[in-house]
Formats: sequence, C-alpha cells, structure tokens
Amino acid sequence: MPLVSIKILEGRTIEQKRGMAKDVTEAIVKNVGCPAAAVQIDIVELKPENISQGGKLFSDKPPM
Amino acid sequence: MPLVSIKILEGRTIEQKRGMAKDVTEAIVKNVGCPAAAVQIDIVELKPENISQGGKLFSDKPPM
Amino acid sequence: MPLVSIKILEGRTIEQKRGMAKDVTEAIVKNVGCPAAAVQIDIVELKPENISQGGKLFSDKPPM
Amino acid sequence: MPLVSIKILEGRTIEQKRGMAKDVTEAIVKNVGCPAAAVQIDIVELKPENISQGGKLFSDKPPM
Amino acid sequence: MPLVSIKILEGRTIEQKRGMAKDVTEAIVKNVGCPAAAVQIDIVELKPENISQGGKLFSDKPPM
Amino acid sequence: MPLVSIKILEGRTIEQKRGMAKDVTEAIVKNVGCPAAAVQIDIVELKPENISQGGKLFSDKPPM
Repeated sequence: MPLVSIKILEGRTIEQKRGMAKDVTEAIVKNVGCPAAAVQIDIVELKPENISQGGKLFSDKPPM
Repeated sequence: MPLVSIKILEGRTIEQKRGMAKDVTEAIVKNVGCPAAAVQIDIVELKPENISQGGKLFSDKPPM
Repeated sequence: MPLVSIKILEGRTIEQKRGMAKDVTEAIVKNVGCPAAAVQIDIVELKPENISQGGKLFSDKPPM
Repeated sequence: MPLVSIKILEGRTIEQKRGMAKDVTEAIVKNVGCPAAAVQIDIVELKPENISQGGKLFSDKPPM
Repeated sequence: MPLVSIKILEGRTIEQKRGMAKDVTEAIVKNVGCPAAAVQIDIVELKPENISQGGKLFSDKPPM
Repeated sequence: MPLVSIKILEGRTIEQKRGMAKDVTEAIVKNVGCPAAAVQIDIVELKPENISQGGKLFSDKPPM
C-alpha cells in the first residue's frame, strides 16, 4: 500500500512500462511520504475492442 | 467519469461488445444526466478457469 | 458474472441508482444473452477531491 | 457478493487455481457467514512486466 | 502480490475482518506457495443501495 | 484512458492528493505520450481495518 492499478491501451514497450513504473512510484513517494518499497503497481492492458468512450469502441475509431 | 468496468467470460463477439458499450452508456446517461462523452467503459475478459462461484471454477462446470 | 463496477461522483439519489442498476442490467442482458440474475453491479462513490482528470482534482474545478 | 478479485503473477496451474478458489471461498464463508454460492472470485493474471514494486518491474528482478 | 480485493456489504465487525484477512491469506499461501508477507488484501465496504443483482438494489430487497 | 486507480490509507490532505494527481499524471504523459487530458485518476481511501498485509490488519499494527 499504496496500490496503483493502471489500465492502458495494449502495445506499450517494456521501456515505457519501466519508465512509467519508476516515475509513478516517485510521484507517489514524493507526495505521500511512504517508502518506495511500499508502492505496488499493476498494469492491465486492454485491446481497443475492450475500451469504450462515449458509447463507441476504440476499435471503431482512431485510438488515443 | 463515470467509469464502468465490466468483467465477463471471454468469447463475446465484437458486435456484442459494441452493442453493450452503446447501450450501457445510454443507460448511464439517462439516469445520471452526464454527457455520453464522459462515460468510459473497459471490458476485462476472463477465462473460465479464472472465475469461481461457490468455490468452483467455471472451467469445472457448465458456463453461465 | 457479468460483474459491473461503476465509479461515479458521489451524490446521486437512490432513484438515480435504482434506475441505473435496472437499465445497465437490461443493456447487458440484451447484448450478452445472460440471465438478469447473473448481472451484479457495484457502485463506488467518489468525493470530488478523489477524482482527477488532466492532473487536476475535480474539487479544484467545476464538476462534470 | 462478496466479490473477490485476485491479481497474481501469471503461470499458476489449474490445480492451484482450483484449490485457491475453494479455500478462499471457505475462508470467507467461515468469517462472514454468507452462503458459499454468494462468493464470486475472479483471477487476473499479470505478466512480470506488468507488475512493479518499489518502482522496479518484476521482469527486471527475480519474481516473488 | 498476490493482491486481493474484497467487496462486501458494509457492517462486518473488526473481528470478522481480522479472521477473514488471516484465513484468506492462509488460503492463498497454501495454494500458491508465496510468503504470507506478500499477500495484500483490501476490503471495500458497500452500502446496500450501491449493490445490485438482477437489476435490483440490495436496499430494495432483503440483504444476503 | 489511461485510467489510474490508487488505493491508499485514508487521511491524506487535499494538498497531498493535489500533488499526487499532478505528478502521477505527468509521469504517465512523459512515458506513454498521451495528452494529459486523457489521464483519469481515482483515489480510493481505505480505513486501517480494511487493509491487511501478511494476514494482519493495519489497525492491529503500526501503519506504514
């Protein structure tokens, strides 16, 4: 604890995930004052057909 | 916001997902009064061996 | 299963929640073909200071 | 309800999942007093590159 | 990791939560083989008006 | 999308939440390349009796 869950469009590289994990952890430590070791992050990757905004699937429109 | 997360047995077609995204969004807009664009939905598909009810895996009994 | 989790700004009335539960359930049954009794919904209400978009808390800007 | 979601490193066998589903359900029934049939569990399996502790991806260090 | 999230009707005693935390942790350790210290559990308590099954709020019918 | 959910011990100040929202958003934008406006964060605050590590409630031991 803190536990961070990030839902994101699939297809990020491991370098992007590595940087995101490091920087999000630092952002939380800086503001909350907990030890870095206490910050757990999980990344849930979603296919475009499993995301909808405004009632439209991402697979039916250009991805963000 | 509103954020909707739907966990569902894997294997729905994209037509089912498209209809579900559209209709769930409309159901929320109708009742909450937010703009449709504010409604985000993600679908997390689960294998039968990753769902349990009553202590039994779905893969060990007929799926619902 | 299906399991639906809805995160929403706090302050909806019970009538809004009742309508949303009924209509979201029907939207899923219509598209997925499961029995209504299989659809579970939970609503997690969030305070404006616990929601951020674009790096800004909802409590620091007009709510949607 | 109760709804239990378990995030876990990928690669468990179906026997491990079957035992976990049975035993976690019993643990909840014992303490909460609900019928076993009311306990739903979903398992979300994560790749080592999608888990971080202390700002480091599991794929960059020995898995737990 | 493993991370366990339990959504449950509000109103359980601290003794029930304490027993559930201990027994669910043991159930996971027994089946997965991880150290107990790696098992994190969070409990999200829900009001009856924030749970629906079959399109009906729990606050509109007898709780389970 | 990306959607970030942060579970954290209750009792953070609004200044801590404001800083965390801003910095976590920047950390994600920097690594993923999405617009800041696409990053949504929700914070779920947990009471010490609703968090367990190693089978022990936080309310039964010193908080982190």
